[in-house]
Amino acid sequence: MGIRTVEEYKESLRRQSPKVYMDGEEVKNIVDHPGFQVAINNLGVSYELEHDPKYRDIATLVSPLINEEISRWTNIQQNEQDTLAMVRLMKGLGDYFCPCTYRCLTSIALNSSWAVSYDIDKKYNTDYHQRVVEFVKEAQRNDWIIGAASIDPKGDRSLKPSEQKDPDLCLHVIERKKDGIIVRGAKAHVSCGPYAHMLSVRGSSKADESEQDYAVGFFIPVDAEGLIHISKAAPAPNEHKDLENPISSKHGGLVESMIIFDDVFVPWERVFLCGEYEFAPSLSSIRGALHAMHKCMCQWALADLEIGATALIADYNGLSEAPNMRESVGEMIMNAEILHSCAIASALEGWKHESGAYIPKAGPACTGKVFSARKVGDNRFFMQDAAGGLVATMASEKDIKDPKTKGYLEKYYKGREGVPTEFRIRAIKLIEDLIASPYAGWRQAMAISGGGDVRHHKEMAMEDYDLEQSIKKAKIAAGIKID
Amino acid sequence: MGIRTVEEYKESLRRQSPKVYMDGEEVKNIVDHPGFQVAINNLGVSYELEHDPKYRDIATLVSPLINEEISRWTNIQQNEQDTLAMVRLMKGLGDYFCPCTYRCLTSIALNSSWAVSYDIDKKYNTDYHQRVVEFVKEAQRNDWIIGAASIDPKGDRSLKPSEQKDPDLCLHVIERKKDGIIVRGAKAHVSCGPYAHMLSVRGSSKADESEQDYAVGFFIPVDAEGLIHISKAAPAPNEHKDLENPISSKHGGLVESMIIFDDVFVPWERVFLCGEYEFAPSLSSIRGALHAMHKCMCQWALADLEIGATALIADYNGLSEAPNMRESVGEMIMNAEILHSCAIASALEGWKHESGAYIPKAGPACTGKVFSARKVGDNRFFMQDAAGGLVATMASEKDIKDPKTKGYLEKYYKGREGVPTEFRIRAIKLIEDLIASPYAGWRQAMAISGGGDVRHHKEMAMEDYDLEQSIKKAKIAAGIKID
Amino acid sequence: MGIRTVEEYKESLRRQSPKVYMDGEEVKNIVDHPGFQVAINNLGVSYELEHDPKYRDIATLVSPLINEEISRWTNIQQNEQDTLAMVRLMKGLGDYFCPCTYRCLTSIALNSSWAVSYDIDKKYNTDYHQRVVEFVKEAQRNDWIIGAASIDPKGDRSLKPSEQKDPDLCLHVIERKKDGIIVRGAKAHVSCGPYAHMLSVRGSSKADESEQDYAVGFFIPVDAEGLIHISKAAPAPNEHKDLENPISSKHGGLVESMIIFDDVFVPWERVFLCGEYEFAPSLSSIRGALHAMHKCMCQWALADLEIGATALIADYNGLSEAPNMRESVGEMIMNAEILHSCAIASALEGWKHESGAYIPKAGPACTGKVFSARKVGDNRFFMQDAAGGLVATMASEKDIKDPKTKGYLEKYYKGREGVPTEFRIRAIKLIEDLIASPYAGWRQAMAISGGGDVRHHKEMAMEDYDLEQSIKKAKIAAGIKID
Amino acid sequence: MGIRTVEEYKESLRRQSPKVYMDGEEVKNIVDHPGFQVAINNLGVSYELEHDPKYRDIATLVSPLINEEISRWTNIQQNEQDTLAMVRLMKGLGDYFCPCTYRCLTSIALNSSWAVSYDIDKKYNTDYHQRVVEFVKEAQRNDWIIGAASIDPKGDRSLKPSEQKDPDLCLHVIERKKDGIIVRGAKAHVSCGPYAHMLSVRGSSKADESEQDYAVGFFIPVDAEGLIHISKAAPAPNEHKDLENPISSKHGGLVESMIIFDDVFVPWERVFLCGEYEFAPSLSSIRGALHAMHKCMCQWALADLEIGATALIADYNGLSEAPNMRESVGEMIMNAEILHSCAIASALEGWKHESGAYIPKAGPACTGKVFSARKVGDNRFFMQDAAGGLVATMASEKDIKDPKTKGYLEKYYKGREGVPTEFRIRAIKLIEDLIASPYAGWRQAMAISGGGDVRHHKEMAMEDYDLEQSIKKAKIAAGIKID
Repeated sequence: MGIRTVEEYKESLRRQSPKVYMDGEEVKNIVDHPGFQVAINNLGVSYELEHDPKYRDIATLVSPLINEEISRWTNIQQNEQDTLAMVRLMKGLGDYFCPCTYRCLTSIALNSSWAVSYDIDKKYNTDYHQRVVEFVKEAQRNDWIIGAASIDPKGDRSLKPSEQKDPDLCLHVIERKKDGIIVRGAKAHVSCGPYAHMLSVRGSSKADESEQDYAVGFFIPVDAEGLIHISKAAPAPNEHKDLENPISSKHGGLVESMIIFDDVFVPWERVFLCGEYEFAPSLSSIRGALHAMHKCMCQWALADLEIGATALIADYNGLSEAPNMRESVGEMIMNAEILHSCAIASALEGWKHESGAYIPKAGPACTGKVFSARKVGDNRFFMQDAAGGLVATMASEKDIKDPKTKGYLEKYYKGREGVPTEFRIRAIKLIEDLIASPYAGWRQAMAISGGGDVRHHKEMAMEDYDLEQSIKKAKIAAGIKID
Repeated sequence: MGIRTVEEYKESLRRQSPKVYMDGEEVKNIVDHPGFQVAINNLGVSYELEHDPKYRDIATLVSPLINEEISRWTNIQQNEQDTLAMVRLMKGLGDYFCPCTYRCLTSIALNSSWAVSYDIDKKYNTDYHQRVVEFVKEAQRNDWIIGAASIDPKGDRSLKPSEQKDPDLCLHVIERKKDGIIVRGAKAHVSCGPYAHMLSVRGSSKADESEQDYAVGFFIPVDAEGLIHISKAAPAPNEHKDLENPISSKHGGLVESMIIFDDVFVPWERVFLCGEYEFAPSLSSIRGALHAMHKCMCQWALADLEIGATALIADYNGLSEAPNMRESVGEMIMNAEILHSCAIASALEGWKHESGAYIPKAGPACTGKVFSARKVGDNRFFMQDAAGGLVATMASEKDIKDPKTKGYLEKYYKGREGVPTEFRIRAIKLIEDLIASPYAGWRQAMAISGGGDVRHHKEMAMEDYDLEQSIKKAKIAAGIKID
Repeated sequence: MGIRTVEEYKESLRRQSPKVYMDGEEVKNIVDHPGFQVAINNLGVSYELEHDPKYRDIATLVSPLINEEISRWTNIQQNEQDTLAMVRLMKGLGDYFCPCTYRCLTSIALNSSWAVSYDIDKKYNTDYHQRVVEFVKEAQRNDWIIGAASIDPKGDRSLKPSEQKDPDLCLHVIERKKDGIIVRGAKAHVSCGPYAHMLSVRGSSKADESEQDYAVGFFIPVDAEGLIHISKAAPAPNEHKDLENPISSKHGGLVESMIIFDDVFVPWERVFLCGEYEFAPSLSSIRGALHAMHKCMCQWALADLEIGATALIADYNGLSEAPNMRESVGEMIMNAEILHSCAIASALEGWKHESGAYIPKAGPACTGKVFSARKVGDNRFFMQDAAGGLVATMASEKDIKDPKTKGYLEKYYKGREGVPTEFRIRAIKLIEDLIASPYAGWRQAMAISGGGDVRHHKEMAMEDYDLEQSIKKAKIAAGIKID
Repeated sequence: MGIRTVEEYKESLRRQSPKVYMDGEEVKNIVDHPGFQVAINNLGVSYELEHDPKYRDIATLVSPLINEEISRWTNIQQNEQDTLAMVRLMKGLGDYFCPCTYRCLTSIALNSSWAVSYDIDKKYNTDYHQRVVEFVKEAQRNDWIIGAASIDPKGDRSLKPSEQKDPDLCLHVIERKKDGIIVRGAKAHVSCGPYAHMLSVRGSSKADESEQDYAVGFFIPVDAEGLIHISKAAPAPNEHKDLENPISSKHGGLVESMIIFDDVFVPWERVFLCGEYEFAPSLSSIRGALHAMHKCMCQWALADLEIGATALIADYNGLSEAPNMRESVGEMIMNAEILHSCAIASALEGWKHESGAYIPKAGPACTGKVFSARKVGDNRFFMQDAAGGLVATMASEKDIKDPKTKGYLEKYYKGREGVPTEFRIRAIKLIEDLIASPYAGWRQAMAISGGGDVRHHKEMAMEDYDLEQSIKKAKIAAGIKID
């Protein structure tokens, strides 16, 4: 029973009652609200794949935990084959034109808490891990979507959590009770908030001994008492058209939220870290490696579509063999290969955590993440350069279809012989959607900042590299005596 | 009387009656139409500067042709001082936050036709140049805006004009009459169409001996009989707000048009090239050098604003001294310096055309153009990286101002001490406008494809370089005997 | 008996009598000739690893063909595990500071001819493959080194082989006899010529139906009658010192040769392609994929040493925590991770050829090759920037050791406290060797041009990519109907 | 009489008796020592130009100080025309294939001390400036070469001068006497030491109030008592050949020295800063701007030769119209244009110092310096990629000329028809010299580290930029109220 349909997903959302604000109004019914439409549509694709014969074998598996067929998104990865399957599953999302569904967050949340709770228990003899195991089973049985609430508003970023004038600028525990904890604060950039089922919440990864209240990790339903979602509408056009915004009218980005924790109670059953500040960094870095691996692939899938769009318009312009077009497409292909290779390498070179979870290698994954953040501009440059001025100047759908202007535009938007003018118009409108729409802007922002900034990922790549070994090699090469 | 005010500009537009379509409707009154508002606002700035005491000295001068004060945009540049003044004038537009007004096209049109008509007359003993002189005087007296209608729809780009199945895919002369010519075809990407006064039209630069009808150059009023403008609304938000879209609601891009030439009559007085195909490339390359020089500066002005925005948000986040922020701002500054240096060098190293017009050097100008097209992605990367996820996730203005959510958002959008939260919100909204708005997308498309593609500018830079001299130097260095 | 020692390798060279010229003289004894010393030393490392307990398990295996322990370099790869083992073996060479031994050519030669001969037999019912099988067994039993003679001098590169005025500018068959063929021409850039045992020779990959004599592939001993090696001395210093040139005095590049085929007889037993021009491209592309995969790893190993050297000198200068040093080392690490990831991905995503040989995937391998060629400059930039002016200005070893100057230099070459000045001197001398020695120049040339030029590898990456699928995806996304 | 000949320069060197060590031996006669030959040859070119009719007008002028014809290198620049003339003079050095003569250091030394001594006098009522004026006159009359001794050995770079365990690791004043000062320490990387006439010496630019003894500036003859030069031989081949090393055998880099100041006496007449630590940074930054401007041009001249060499070999290979060759040459040309534009802009936008000296603008100059340091790798990549494997594999001159091998090599090194094979060989040997010789390594090191590291120049560019104005602009754009 672990596999749901899109309809069941929507039904499950209707049964929830999160407190949500958007554009100055309280949203009671997110399923039918226009600001959420595209985002729910997007996440729905992750359910569709579970029923698509082409992907079912990758998208689902039998869980050893509950001995039932489950979605791969709720699986605890055991080995490199599991992780390589995830790489392929991410490719599948690309085939549906919504490479970024935020469903990867579910997998990241479960696998990272699985590993870190184990480590804490080992040191402190706590019983966090068993709670996580039970939670994972529940997630598997219900085919849950679990959003990520990780990033504090932070205030002055040069200060530690406890140094902020307002102590709430980083989420913290304000009371420990017998049956649970009470937390206060907020989480910014909550990906997949009110249209998920659960949230995975983590406190600061930088808390130290004196600020143990900021070190916390737990799960919570999206409609828990005291949670307030202030959501930003997906960057999608309001009305659906035929030619315009072919991607963004269907899969145009997601809804991001600021979530306020207005003294929220979390039962101990859902807490997996509370005060053990020294494990906060490893929770952050395991999450980071998992996230970066997925990011390589969603960016690959976007790049693959951009490659196709670039080659397509070059063809329609009669230039598919023009050297500069081949140069551009070749650069885009090599950029894509690097992302894919980084994902593959991080999966293959991962490590088996003592808890049984298999964690991708941070070095290649984070390198791929940084590479993709830096190359998003280049890919757009190549695509724009191939498509030319029409990206900015093509007449609107209304003019293209209006009898007063239609004849002129069909005559003059003609490309090479053999290509219907309508096809060329559609190719340009696709590229316009990928470069010059609000969705394009959102994508760019998320490609660069989603999952943490570039410096952070570069640091992770450095930390993962065996620099000591390299230095030792240099010393031997230089003839420097080592003890 | 050569200096107009913004109001006079608008009045002059009301006196014109171009045939314009936008979004499926005929637009009778462009001055008050929402789709043109921002564009007219933008162009108006070029008039404002003529009256701004800070810029008047640069923006205006006394024309030796008519011995009256005129706008610099209608000036025939005589020497490097004139061109350097233009560089400074472009800086002034940046101070008004609309670095790209399209007014540079006026200068490009007048100076290039001035020079090329002289060359044709010299070879063919025609009298084009005197017609251009008269036209320039008229432009100076009326402080005209002259749009550019240069790029043919082209169809299959691997074919020459005459090889297209539909001969109209490149504009051509279909009849030569005693009093003028009749032209048919269309021009794509017409920058500054119906809200200009005149258009400078040129035919293909690739026409050869057998296709002389495609080699043509002339001026024409925007409301000439038979001209049809199919215009695309400026990428600006419909309603004006306080926080959102601070740039694009005022200067959010311009209106681009496809203009149909439905058998349009052009009197000989306005024609300055007709059949002399061997001068079409030099018309194109002189226009190209002038355009690229201006492009360096409008991109510089945009970059300068992006630098400020990046440094500002870093400061508000408490990170103005963080090494990675300084790295980013430093890169952006150096990119800006290169654009500025290319403009300066192209001005200083320009050449005096025999006609008296001074033409900027193509090499540095086109290099700057290519550099800016490639760096637009990098600058956004740095700005996004500094601003972080809020660019994609900040709540809407309505939520920020709504009493139900205002308190939460003011609490949690707080930056470093001493900075009002409202300021930080405004800084983020500015960056969102510069990265993730439709205006941002339009800007990116124009930065890369505006004024011709990158390959074209690279070719121009190569052509301008004294490669023979470099090869000779290499031969001497290698000991290869040269005759 | 398939595993030899370095001594046995040298002995085997003494038993050969290739015709070799270097620096105007005929070299009778290459083993003891100074111009070959470093190259033989380098190749010897590939034998050392076979006996090094740390690498023996990777460097050797039992061949299913002869059921004996053999060197991995002579193995026919069966699956991704074999190829991944090769990736690790290449890492081992890096630990010996000679990442590029040219021994990979042995593996490339055997695996590519194994596959292509099978394909030809299948089409033409020839018996090439069995000859290759026998040759592979011989190579395994003798632990042979097989050099690569692939690139024709080519003459005018815009012309086909048969269009050259001198027909010999590309190697060709001039006579087919009962017992073998006679070939004439030359091969440029022969890596690992007279100090190998055998050469793998291939003709042009561009020969077409009318030039079948240029399509050829065979093995030949380096001392075959009619072969003339004109060799270039390894870029190594003549005299061995203590401080100077720590790498290049031991592993300073290899000897490259032009080999003349002065009407050389090749018995049919050693021929595996002769006239079947349509298989020449696949021989080239399979070789290319194998070569690029190895190249990723030798360049990784070099990069890893450069990373260590950079971090080391930063430390000795007291700057290991300086932000700009961390920036540089971080960039170098990410560049290295990309090379490694490309190698891993090409191994994991390879394909099983019908002949049983496993071929790495060309896309990631060639992408890594191009990436490394482009990044060689960046890595040197970072290393140089960290080490500073001393790379160009440090006094010579003689002055450092001479009593007249020693005291001054030891006083003033001091770095941070705790680091012996001698160590800092050695670190600088290592970096000087890696940037400013003839070896460094040779390395740069080989990194960029070794194994074919960048355009060629980019083309291979493009060919390997499923561009049709990307275009199809773009069409669906744009709403373009596909039949 | 301010203009000397090369012979007079050499004679003047013979009259000097500096204490010099090289390669373990004391060098008594540097003029005839092989280690100095190429360096003296190089510097001699700066004198040749003064007599070359093509450059005389640029290379010389009448000094307003002494009312005699002088070399431009000793001129105090008065305005942008003077600086633009210097840009052109630097081009002239390129025509002689020795773009880097170190003669620019003479100009830098005189102009910077001219300005800074004026500022100090103004504040402290000292009389440094008049001493500098007298020194400049002397330099002009004698057409002196003045080397630069600027960089301290520094020891632990994370510490200030006075924090080093050995106080001598930065040069300092150990005694102030009536007639002069006594200094102790050393200067590393002394460009143009014993083969100059004078040295311009400056102390640390980071000294603060408590370490005034480290703030010092003076001139001194290269053979002053107590000065010890430990010099590194120029990276040039020992024997002169015909084909090999065509550049480096004549202009192959310069001699760099470590100079020990073993308690050296400097008379007050030659001191222009002593203890006024607050002026040390401006001495450093004015020197930096001047140096960076020259650097743009020497790197331009090198790039210009590389462009020629790349286009030449492409032509000889029959590929001058091949798209990838044009791509490469185009990139190199645009890189060169940027360097040139930065030099031009820094000259044109410079500022008039109160002392009368005209100082180039730091922003564009330092940007160009950073750009060139980063692009040195790219240019070599393009050149290597065009030339291909022969750069690493071409037979030696001896084999090319030896009767035993000559016939083969002439046959097989043939390029396109119409090009003598000898020419193609020479073109390759030139490129080998530019990429793979010790000279090439030295050039790379100097391009990156010469004149200070990249971070330093980036900081200077940032400091020069009006960031406050950019931030203000961003604030206005965002609607942030400014007081």
